[in-house]
Amino acid sequence: MKINYGEVVKKILDSRKKTGGINKIYFVACGGSKSGLTPANFFLTCESKKIQSWVYTAKEFELCTPKAFDENSIVVTLSFSGNTPEAVEVAKLTQKVGAVSITLVGKEDSLLAANGDYIFYYGDEPKYKYSVGSIAIALRFAVELLNQVEGYKYYDEMQNGFNILDDVIEKARKYALPGALSFAENHKTEPVIYVMASGANYSVAYTTTTCILMECQWIHSNPIHCAEFFHGPFEVTDKEVPFLILLGTGRERTMDERAINFLQKYGKKITILDAKEFGVDILGANVCEYLSPLVFTGVLSIYSHKLADARNHSVDVRRYMWHVEY
Amino acid sequence: MKINYGEVVKKILDSRKKTGGINKIYFVACGGSKSGLTPANFFLTCESKKIQSWVYTAKEFELCTPKAFDENSIVVTLSFSGNTPEAVEVAKLTQKVGAVSITLVGKEDSLLAANGDYIFYYGDEPKYKYSVGSIAIALRFAVELLNQVEGYKYYDEMQNGFNILDDVIEKARKYALPGALSFAENHKTEPVIYVMASGANYSVAYTTTTCILMECQWIHSNPIHCAEFFHGPFEVTDKEVPFLILLGTGRERTMDERAINFLQKYGKKITILDAKEFGVDILGANVCEYLSPLVFTGVLSIYSHKLADARNHSVDVRRYMWHVEY
Repeated sequence: MKINYGEVVKKILDSRKKTGGINKIYFVACGGSKSGLTPANFFLTCESKKIQSWVYTAKEFELCTPKAFDENSIVVTLSFSGNTPEAVEVAKLTQKVGAVSITLVGKEDSLLAANGDYIFYYGDEPKYKYSVGSIAIALRFAVELLNQVEGYKYYDEMQNGFNILDDVIEKARKYALPGALSFAENHKTEPVIYVMASGANYSVAYTTTTCILMECQWIHSNPIHCAEFFHGPFEVTDKEVPFLILLGTGRERTMDERAINFLQKYGKKITILDAKEFGVDILGANVCEYLSPLVFTGVLSIYSHKLADARNHSVDVRRYMWHVEY
Repeated sequence: MKINYGEVVKKILDSRKKTGGINKIYFVACGGSKSGLTPANFFLTCESKKIQSWVYTAKEFELCTPKAFDENSIVVTLSFSGNTPEAVEVAKLTQKVGAVSITLVGKEDSLLAANGDYIFYYGDEPKYKYSVGSIAIALRFAVELLNQVEGYKYYDEMQNGFNILDDVIEKARKYALPGALSFAENHKTEPVIYVMASGANYSVAYTTTTCILMECQWIHSNPIHCAEFFHGPFEVTDKEVPFLILLGTGRERTMDERAINFLQKYGKKITILDAKEFGVDILGANVCEYLSPLVFTGVLSIYSHKLADARNHSVDVRRYMWHVEY
């Protein structure tokens, strides 16, 4: 489905002209879906003067709702199935409060879609066409919102980035293959693998830990922010502990490099995925930092599948999810 | 040093009357110090309509500074030594931007203190008097700020909570002792221990993972938010994997209980620290949720030392921190 972001944003802004205007946005979801909304949140916290932005896990937003949440707020929720109960409750709460409810769903016939003022549907999009997937939809919406509210200097550069994104990711995924195979072979018996990143890419470290390693492979992990590493976590470093580091290409690169320099000296099982090698820079000097989580997501999906193959542990196996009540 | 929060807040608000008034606050630090500021941030995001609040790791705030950061913002930084370079840079940036720089330090003769418009010094306070320690100082300041800007219905109840806090914590620490000894004995050879919490207490799960387990004991860990648990992490659960869960007494309790119910069914090495048993409720029905991180911090310090004893691995041993350049 082709989404007309410009029109949706215009409608939203028009609808709040009399009440003071949109000034807050909450990105609210669970697990990997929360990570999917995080790059949009990161973009707005960095770039917007007028729209304040936060990201929440859905149940906490429902129970510990911020007092500032009001009719001039937007809530963006995301759930592929459209039936994640925590997200559905937040969309209902959003409509009750009279805030703008935007729901990103993979299934149109779902409770989440039923509670959206605007429904961004991506269920029919090809799986690896990231430019029209959920992460990109949230980010495109954020970019459009910023541009209409206060202008965004690099709006055109960002649109160009989106236009060439799938091509860059396809190449990145091909480039990633030998590294993914070797990572999988070298880590197939590891009980713990740490994942590190910073800036916009931290969201991908969270997904890699939470969904790829813990959920799909039952491997222990922790998404460590590269800047936090030196304030405690780095003491676990030794030659036996594996670290997978996402090396960004934007302002965050200096944080990542500091962690890498340390790990190269005191660790041994170090895997570095460098955004530059994956062509992230091509996406545009001023915007590639915000788009890089999409490229890393594409690359990590290769790592996920190759690790599953090497461990003979399919990415579709669960012991609790979908099987037991909780 | 007795801090006159009322006077400090009044001065700050007066100083920004002509520029539109204080409307944003950023809590910015590293590792355990960042955790120490998180309850204040949680309180304001929950309770304030007019002051928007965020927490950042310091280096990311410096490199990816939010565009909304301006002279009507407050930045609260914290470092016991007062010389954490990332925090010092943020305090300098704050003064350069013309925002209000509040620095919490344990050493008055420090770079961080030198870059504060207001210096909250706690270096002379007794170690286990949490009501005048760094976490409480940040929270007291947040409460005063909220009250002067827009009123806080439970201001008196909160002050009463602070008044009886040290007594509650002292009793909680005594109550915790047998449990801490047994936890230490049962976990002294565990390579991985997960820590879980939600709401305001999530900050304590982060500190426990980052500073107590990873930094001081070199034990693998991950601070899992109880509401996020079911969206990936819970797949690592089995009878061999230990979980330490902080069970809150406020709105977050329902999230914690759901995780505990699951773990009691499918896990085995489960340790539950129940805020109710530690007397958190006594602190006041409407405010105890915000004060409970302080009680858990006091309790976890007992767990930390007993675990260190059982493992014969002093809490003061580091292999990198203070020893090598990084």
